[in-house]
Amino acid sequence: MSSTATSNLASLPVTLDDVLAAKRRIHGYCHRTPAFPSRTLSKLIGARVWLKCENLQVGGAFKARGAYNKIARLSPLERQRGVITFSSGNHAQGVARAAQSLAIPCVVVMPLDAPVTKLNATRDTYRAEVVLCGTTSDERRREAEKIARERGMTMIPPFDDEDIVAGQGTVGLEILEDLPEVDAIVIPVGGGGLLSGVAVAVKSQHPHVQIIGVEPTNACAMAKSVEAGQVVAMQPGPTIADGLKPVAPGHIPFIIARELVDRMVQVDDAAIMRATNLLHSRAKLVVEASGAAGVAWLLQARDPSLFDKTIAVILSGGNIDPALYANMTEPARADVQLFDD
Amino acid sequence: MSSTATSNLASLPVTLDDVLAAKRRIHGYCHRTPAFPSRTLSKLIGARVWLKCENLQVGGAFKARGAYNKIARLSPLERQRGVITFSSGNHAQGVARAAQSLAIPCVVVMPLDAPVTKLNATRDTYRAEVVLCGTTSDERRREAEKIARERGMTMIPPFDDEDIVAGQGTVGLEILEDLPEVDAIVIPVGGGGLLSGVAVAVKSQHPHVQIIGVEPTNACAMAKSVEAGQVVAMQPGPTIADGLKPVAPGHIPFIIARELVDRMVQVDDAAIMRATNLLHSRAKLVVEASGAAGVAWLLQARDPSLFDKTIAVILSGGNIDPALYANMTEPARADVQLFDD
Repeated sequence: MSSTATSNLASLPVTLDDVLAAKRRIHGYCHRTPAFPSRTLSKLIGARVWLKCENLQVGGAFKARGAYNKIARLSPLERQRGVITFSSGNHAQGVARAAQSLAIPCVVVMPLDAPVTKLNATRDTYRAEVVLCGTTSDERRREAEKIARERGMTMIPPFDDEDIVAGQGTVGLEILEDLPEVDAIVIPVGGGGLLSGVAVAVKSQHPHVQIIGVEPTNACAMAKSVEAGQVVAMQPGPTIADGLKPVAPGHIPFIIARELVDRMVQVDDAAIMRATNLLHSRAKLVVEASGAAGVAWLLQARDPSLFDKTIAVILSGGNIDPALYANMTEPARADVQLFDD
Repeated sequence: MSSTATSNLASLPVTLDDVLAAKRRIHGYCHRTPAFPSRTLSKLIGARVWLKCENLQVGGAFKARGAYNKIARLSPLERQRGVITFSSGNHAQGVARAAQSLAIPCVVVMPLDAPVTKLNATRDTYRAEVVLCGTTSDERRREAEKIARERGMTMIPPFDDEDIVAGQGTVGLEILEDLPEVDAIVIPVGGGGLLSGVAVAVKSQHPHVQIIGVEPTNACAMAKSVEAGQVVAMQPGPTIADGLKPVAPGHIPFIIARELVDRMVQVDDAAIMRATNLLHSRAKLVVEASGAAGVAWLLQARDPSLFDKTIAVILSGGNIDPALYANMTEPARADVQLFDD
């Protein structure tokens, strides 16, 4: 884990050229999301903090980028047979939406207890065929693999795939375009697709920019993997950040993160809730728990090494269950006053 | 009320030159807020709908523009004596924040029942001197006038002032810059400062652009005034849009609106709640009830004359009491499914 190991960039499974190709491919489909400065966060952290708003991406999360980049590259025969995925979250919506826009059949295998907003969006808005199955990721994966075999569909993985990683990396290109003076980029980490894609895009051009990955304390498989020098599985504990708890990071994201990521850090649920509230009350942005992990770390750590730096923090998604959000942003639960000075 | 009466532009109390001067004055203080397309709204309305995000303005509302433009023009003596206002809402915060940044003393007279978030922001964040007084606008105005006389402070009115109107008009300049092809601009209307400022900025340059003002059905004093050809007072009925219920529009906004505004329309609270929910669940933006009135009208009216047009709708503010917001965005109250098809 070193920011100077940029001599290895060309040998990584995803290169800057792949990310630049992804940028051209997703143009006109994905939003070029805005990045704005946050005065409140900047004051609290003692730095210039910019919010890169992937919660405003089509489908409400960065996942649209990777999914479209992958699906747009399929052959005519593959397109005809369709695609399948087994995510319960933003990736499923990203796949369903991309498939819909390219008029490709799409199956999403979701857990029986999927949040109603995500279920509705996937089935009713994006017109995917939803198969409800089990409650664990393993059950869903097996069901999806069975359907994929039977119907000849292409599996679209959530993060462990070169095209997915390259697509997510376009976020990094946009950050550099809007904020060429950036010193550090703070990124929520689940399977590592966004982290590794952004790392490739940024380190290839500005090797001095620090890449900081943020995981929940209870689900920090990427940090453990980077420490161990190999992919390590970890049974995730409970966390409100439901999008950041894969059992293990992807192999491709891991190989990239090992070379290019400067720091892996952790946050707890209390910090995530404070961040969600701050983003709501001060930045007027709806951000889901997983998407607020980067801001949570900035607030929790108040890291002296970032003092007076220019920091971009990625708000990776905004798809939160309304009931949960209402609960999280209730004033009794939310120490709103904390942020008012 | 006519879009062709542009020959009278030069004789209006605020001109394009005033708005351009305001733009230079507020530069570096106010955000140039983003405008994004909303695919969901565009599909629902059958038009290209863009959201102009004044909820992301400093202080969470467009009010920062007018307040700063006004206060930045005060003489050294006036600055030394300070400013005073008696708004309970976003204008007070706009004034307090502008005064703070210019190191000018500031008194805000607020009602005894002011929302705690606005009270905290005004007093603790912006360090204004808050005087709590009565519950009606009249009681507050008298108290503010008394303090202004005693201490030689300059009263900063919420809308009936040339500099305030010119400042708010900068929103219109930015819309034209970002969206030169715009056909119609939809604007929430309280006292008419934003409406009239934007109308001057836009009609002076693109006279064919339709300017549409939106008021609550229970508080439509501007529509009644324009109809009557003179300023008409109206006791506002109950409405969730607490920022849009002055007893009467300002004289200066009225004179401008009478010449330049194409249509005044009304929305009810149910439409405003649907709009707030849609902006939350689909656009991932926190918008207060008053700020969502424009979107509410688009959804309620589905006006055939706007079919296939390019529409900018101003989200005028995002400062909503968290408890109220949680209540408004609860799924049981919010017909979220409505917007998912």
